Amino acid sequence: MIIILKQNANPEKVEILKQELEHKGFKLHLSQGTQTSLIGLIGDTTSIHEDWLKAMDVVEDVRRIREPYKKASRSMHPENTVVDVCGQKIGGGHFQVIAGPCSIETREQITQVAEDVKRSGARLLRGGAFKPRTSPYAFQGLHEQGLDLLLEAKKATGLPVVTEIMSAEHLPLFEDVDVIQVGARNMQNFELLKELGKIRKPILLKRGLANTLDELLMSAEYIMAGGNENVILCERGIRTFETSTRNTLDISAIPMLKQKTHLPVIVDPSHASGIRFMVEPLTLAAIAAGADGLMIEVHNDPEKALCDGAQSLTPQMFDTLMKKIQRTVDFFRILD
Amino acid sequence: MIIILKQNANPEKVEILKQELEHKGFKLHLSQGTQTSLIGLIGDTTSIHEDWLKAMDVVEDVRRIREPYKKASRSMHPENTVVDVCGQKIGGGHFQVIAGPCSIETREQITQVAEDVKRSGARLLRGGAFKPRTSPYAFQGLHEQGLDLLLEAKKATGLPVVTEIMSAEHLPLFEDVDVIQVGARNMQNFELLKELGKIRKPILLKRGLANTLDELLMSAEYIMAGGNENVILCERGIRTFETSTRNTLDISAIPMLKQKTHLPVIVDPSHASGIRFMVEPLTLAAIAAGADGLMIEVHNDPEKALCDGAQSLTPQMFDTLMKKIQRTVDFFRILD
Amino acid sequence: MIIILKQNANPEKVEILKQELEHKGFKLHLSQGTQTSLIGLIGDTTSIHEDWLKAMDVVEDVRRIREPYKKASRSMHPENTVVDVCGQKIGGGHFQVIAGPCSIETREQITQVAEDVKRSGARLLRGGAFKPRTSPYAFQGLHEQGLDLLLEAKKATGLPVVTEIMSAEHLPLFEDVDVIQVGARNMQNFELLKELGKIRKPILLKRGLANTLDELLMSAEYIMAGGNENVILCERGIRTFETSTRNTLDISAIPMLKQKTHLPVIVDPSHASGIRFMVEPLTLAAIAAGADGLMIEVHNDPEKALCDGAQSLTPQMFDTLMKKIQRTVDFFRILD
Amino acid sequence: MIIILKQNANPEKVEILKQELEHKGFKLHLSQGTQTSLIGLIGDTTSIHEDWLKAMDVVEDVRRIREPYKKASRSMHPENTVVDVCGQKIGGGHFQVIAGPCSIETREQITQVAEDVKRSGARLLRGGAFKPRTSPYAFQGLHEQGLDLLLEAKKATGLPVVTEIMSAEHLPLFEDVDVIQVGARNMQNFELLKELGKIRKPILLKRGLANTLDELLMSAEYIMAGGNENVILCERGIRTFETSTRNTLDISAIPMLKQKTHLPVIVDPSHASGIRFMVEPLTLAAIAAGADGLMIEVHNDPEKALCDGAQSLTPQMFDTLMKKIQRTVDFFRILD
Repeated sequence: MIIILKQNANPEKVEILKQELEHKGFKLHLSQGTQTSLIGLIGDTTSIHEDWLKAMDVVEDVRRIREPYKKASRSMHPENTVVDVCGQKIGGGHFQVIAGPCSIETREQITQVAEDVKRSGARLLRGGAFKPRTSPYAFQGLHEQGLDLLLEAKKATGLPVVTEIMSAEHLPLFEDVDVIQVGARNMQNFELLKELGKIRKPILLKRGLANTLDELLMSAEYIMAGGNENVILCERGIRTFETSTRNTLDISAIPMLKQKTHLPVIVDPSHASGIRFMVEPLTLAAIAAGADGLMIEVHNDPEKALCDGAQSLTPQMFDTLMKKIQRTVDFFRILD
Repeated sequence: MIIILKQNANPEKVEILKQELEHKGFKLHLSQGTQTSLIGLIGDTTSIHEDWLKAMDVVEDVRRIREPYKKASRSMHPENTVVDVCGQKIGGGHFQVIAGPCSIETREQITQVAEDVKRSGARLLRGGAFKPRTSPYAFQGLHEQGLDLLLEAKKATGLPVVTEIMSAEHLPLFEDVDVIQVGARNMQNFELLKELGKIRKPILLKRGLANTLDELLMSAEYIMAGGNENVILCERGIRTFETSTRNTLDISAIPMLKQKTHLPVIVDPSHASGIRFMVEPLTLAAIAAGADGLMIEVHNDPEKALCDGAQSLTPQMFDTLMKKIQRTVDFFRILD
Repeated sequence: MIIILKQNANPEKVEILKQELEHKGFKLHLSQGTQTSLIGLIGDTTSIHEDWLKAMDVVEDVRRIREPYKKASRSMHPENTVVDVCGQKIGGGHFQVIAGPCSIETREQITQVAEDVKRSGARLLRGGAFKPRTSPYAFQGLHEQGLDLLLEAKKATGLPVVTEIMSAEHLPLFEDVDVIQVGARNMQNFELLKELGKIRKPILLKRGLANTLDELLMSAEYIMAGGNENVILCERGIRTFETSTRNTLDISAIPMLKQKTHLPVIVDPSHASGIRFMVEPLTLAAIAAGADGLMIEVHNDPEKALCDGAQSLTPQMFDTLMKKIQRTVDFFRILD
Repeated sequence: MIIILKQNANPEKVEILKQELEHKGFKLHLSQGTQTSLIGLIGDTTSIHEDWLKAMDVVEDVRRIREPYKKASRSMHPENTVVDVCGQKIGGGHFQVIAGPCSIETREQITQVAEDVKRSGARLLRGGAFKPRTSPYAFQGLHEQGLDLLLEAKKATGLPVVTEIMSAEHLPLFEDVDVIQVGARNMQNFELLKELGKIRKPILLKRGLANTLDELLMSAEYIMAGGNENVILCERGIRTFETSTRNTLDISAIPMLKQKTHLPVIVDPSHASGIRFMVEPLTLAAIAAGADGLMIEVHNDPEKALCDGAQSLTPQMFDTLMKKIQRTVDFFRILD
């Protein structure tokens, strides 16, 4: 971390700052330029917040050199993390497709979709019981009853299940859930992240609509700092000025995250676009860019879906897409 | 709401859609253009989600004509809402300044700042006990103990207090708090919003970093739909491509919200800029643009602050600023 | 186009508006809702600007139903446009790679790179003579001399050349250039676009950093309205809040543009990321998403490049990448 | 400037880099941390582009310490620049209002508006003859004829005139124009900026829709590096995700630019909002935040305006607003 001092900084105050930093265990490296004086901090700066330094009267600005996360950082853990979900592995060369409806609606719907996506080759089932909806007047999910139906579908098909949690209070209901999803709107719900750090279940952490990759990794760090290192990151589109797609899929996030972290990275092409015809090209692009998996919405009757029907595939469309996914994954595996 | 049909839409499917819409109680208005056929929905479309319609095979696109919120809408409630906090009124011509430290650190700190800001003319005290921090290694607030210290400062000064909640589970701890703040990162923590709709305390709802004004009003609607109409909206800067300020204060949000809603709108110039020297110009601009109040960070020793020191004013700076605030509020009151 | 009238609109003024619209040749379709009255315009609304209507006292808002471009629109021209550059076809199933250095520096450099990229399979040579640089103190390109060197490299290799124009005044210098590029910063330099509409050379039009897809198509429309229908669109990354990549490649732009327009769409992965190691994953993703071509920066000595060395590949890296590109294009050709 | 070396950087290559930097005249300051080695450059780094360094094999990243502009920088020129337009001063405590129609339409229109705004207290007249329009089918301005009409209005009223240039080729037509405006879409039309650096007329430089403040200052630097130091900066709203206003007025830009540069900063509230009722609050906010002037659209018959009628004030509205502007400017002058 580099501290840029003000040109007219009071030398006594600078001295006090230096002592304080040395007292915190840093070695200091001073540099005197023609216009600018700098202090370099040598040591682990993870626990230092730039704002603390910026508040100082003598400090003009601060530049961080090392990333502010440790457990999520690839520089600390060069090997890829492989997350194991009931025997299904994600990351480190293991590619998985998570599929299912946006929200669980009826026993018939979730079981039918579960059987369909399993037959097509998906290895995990998704389905929402607690739905974060912009409008209080929109369908909010079936809650406990929805989780029960999801677990029935799990029993019927043997597929491990992924479903979203919206409050730490609901954790007891998620005991038999295999992967707990943190939605984009809760990526910085830090109280929830801390609770998820206390368990050992895999967590699927979606990137917030306006969060940088470093912030995503800091949220992963919240979970990992608690002791739960089973974190799967999910890029699902960010908010930009472009309005013709619901969100803008940040495809660059895949290789950039792969460089910054050892955690698996999957992509949700359904939410990224919000439009059915774009799911296939974004799916193939995600594989090409190096994603470790996909999360795709499938509904047995999208026109009647209570949520996100516009972006859901029918089981038949999904089946066709899965064949392309499998061939594409195989192709890129041998391309390297 | 206007439904744009696809050019080659199957007439039978269109007929089914029309029947379904009529069944939901809408009157339909059909329009046949040279290239485009439209269906206009006449009736209350608040409960209709565009996505449900966009999922239809025959639908090309949907355009909403009326805003999707009711209770928060000025068109339904032309009169300004005045929120009363222990006798301090906000909105409808009543201007208030909320001041205090980013986070509560010690008894001395919060009580000292409370006395200082009261003397300078603030009518509500802020202070964070639960702090949403990007890094798990940053100071997270004093939690219950912090709330206790805040309530002591309330008792000592008589100032009503405003403090942030991060999880519905903590609600019992907030019984003696006067205004509960929902932070930017929790603006779409819908489970929390629903719980806050069940109580009758004023809620200070901050706009999310990447949320539109309509989304902010939908989050207010969550609280109001539950029965709690004491909502104060707070603009605190949005995330843009500009990096020289921490956030971009959306000053236009003030007049635009005033047109869309009857709820009071306040501004947080401290978080919007993240830099001390910008607090004054943004404060004065917010008053000029018609804000109903301000929320300003004040710390007795910003250089030692555990959080956000770089944007905190000293009590002395705040005192000088309060004099300007009062004169500016008075000036604009008579300008109209 | 749908005009939403104010609730208390003066009936006489509405009548005048209606007559004016009918006078312009539109058929009107009126709709009276419970709260809202609408006027639908039937006819070609391309020449109507929403702002003109929004300025009316009786108008609350305007919603466009049809896209505001004609010649660029796929709904008017369902067949893919194939642009022919000296026999090299782009679009409609024809995939091309344009490669070369960011800027032309010396005869040796451009000729060497031209020979290298030709040997690797590139079919067009790029190289900048006029360089748009943020800083006036940065290398601005060799101008006329650079164009001469580029044309020498063209003669030596037979590769058609692509180079950027920054002002219509320079057009005479571009007589022997095969494809004229309009850079992102000039996407809305309308005077330049109009001049390019008067010639018949293919134009490579890059999307502006903060321009929507509809704006990109309106800029293409400027060129096409002048009579030059040889327009190639190029996605090169947009500006967002994310700072770990130089720009955010909008991969969704490819399928979305393909739906909106018949023009070929290529991708520039070098500028999109700004970082060498990301060029390959973004290249492969672009092919997977359906791009018609790529534009890739190659430099014989990136460490000595006068511009954008950080994102340039060496000829050897490019050769390896071209082999992957060819296999990937072939793979996706048979996947469908 | 700080160069961060890769952990495994080849020592011989690092040595070569160091020699190259010393050869360029920099003194080097080396720092060896636990994980990271840094090279600090001491000297004028304005001419060094980060990308050149990032292209090096041994370089991981680069952090700039000093701003990349010189002539525009306040650190080099602490005194406020005052731009003099025919005796009307802008900057350094001199506040001016520029008013007039979006585009010049007829002799009657421009002369009438000129007389009206002069009577209300505007000291400069604006009016567009060359109009940058997103659509090629929209009114493009009257060009030469428009400039003639503007100059007639100048003669009739004595008001100096401000009008936009869209291409350096048109410069000869602007000989009698008093202030040449560079529009947002041409802020990085570097060929145009260079030409404007060769003349001595004041230039009103508008910030691009997606340009940072540092980029705005680099564009000012282009003009100033050519020798023309009469540059007035104009904030006119930036592009964000918010869609309820046309643009987002970045009010923070005013105090931030004032700190970074000595150039005058004005605000265009008309384009920033795009909506008439928002012009007043944004105008007052701009004054409160410290702007040196305003640019406001006024049209004698907004409902018939060929351009931007929705945001234009009538002369009567403008007259009312000018009274408020004058009182507000006076109020803030004595507030400090």
